[in-house]
Amino acid sequence: MRLARPLENLIDQLLKLPGIGPKTAQRLALYILKLPEMEARQLAQAIVDCRQKVFPCSRCGYLTDFDPCLICSDESRDKSLICIGEESSDVIAIERTGFRGQYFVLNKDFNLMEDKGLEDLNLKPLEDRLATGEIKEVVLALNPDMDGEVMSRFLATVAGSFGVKVTRLAHGLPVGGDIEFADEITLRRALEGRKEL
Amino acid sequence: MRLARPLENLIDQLLKLPGIGPKTAQRLALYILKLPEMEARQLAQAIVDCRQKVFPCSRCGYLTDFDPCLICSDESRDKSLICIGEESSDVIAIERTGFRGQYFVLNKDFNLMEDKGLEDLNLKPLEDRLATGEIKEVVLALNPDMDGEVMSRFLATVAGSFGVKVTRLAHGLPVGGDIEFADEITLRRALEGRKEL
Repeated sequence: MRLARPLENLIDQLLKLPGIGPKTAQRLALYILKLPEMEARQLAQAIVDCRQKVFPCSRCGYLTDFDPCLICSDESRDKSLICIGEESSDVIAIERTGFRGQYFVLNKDFNLMEDKGLEDLNLKPLEDRLATGEIKEVVLALNPDMDGEVMSRFLATVAGSFGVKVTRLAHGLPVGGDIEFADEITLRRALEGRKEL
Repeated sequence: MRLARPLENLIDQLLKLPGIGPKTAQRLALYILKLPEMEARQLAQAIVDCRQKVFPCSRCGYLTDFDPCLICSDESRDKSLICIGEESSDVIAIERTGFRGQYFVLNKDFNLMEDKGLEDLNLKPLEDRLATGEIKEVVLALNPDMDGEVMSRFLATVAGSFGVKVTRLAHGLPVGGDIEFADEITLRRALEGRKEL
């Protein structure tokens, strides 16, 4: 099929994005072509700006445009409680729950089966914060999969060596879920973690 | 939720695109943030380039980066056969069938119930081509909905006045479809258009 070269190039670029297949890429590219030039420029500028101006906070690793980030510099937050997550997107999700502690974001894709991620994990800023004695509890909020489990144990050892309480998110039935369709591991965890009413 | 401002801006820009909801916009923005700066720039540049360099062919209206477009200037194509479509995306779809005629793209969202689209429809380039007498058949390939039907009749009158044969795409069962679930209008059209084996 003969497409105009700049159009084909845009489709190729969009195809690199996650979850964008050939049909979606084509639809998006044709839509962008119909945008007023100003709006197309704004979109392009937003991409460049975002990539240039946003970086991980030096203290907690959360994506920010100034350092330390808004969460770290918020005096109303509970400094004795720190939640460790894998990515900034996890922080965004946890923030929606109303959590008022602080964070530490690992910013690493770790795949322990392939021995990836542990070697260049920079825990120095976390250890510095733990060393101040200000932190009373570390909540581990890693994904409930094999890598997350192993990483949680590793981080529990690190944090535990500073004598702080280490907890992790509860496993159990998702709210709105169906017992009938829950996998046996989740159901076993839900049983183990049963609560008195 | 507190997001870095450039990140929030990028998410807002992505949200304007069709089929992109808040979760997808966030995922895309965070992905773009992780791209090497070079690749983020390429994506931004592709958007600007596409918007600046691609325009409708003056002869057929198909999106192109030079005029006349590749299809119009392809000497091996059948110049006596012209297919009229609504958008360049329709041409892309028809090209995949191996159609070897030429095209005329209306480039208009028409909504006849609201009396939109007809007044600023520029049929001059089409009429000029019909007037040369080179064209023997016009194939109408408008969407099979109410607006497409009305527009097809209108275009049939215009093209018919030049004494050319006017056809339109067949209606019938989609290949791989299920008779049981076909709507009655489609099924009636399929019956009317039945073919001898």
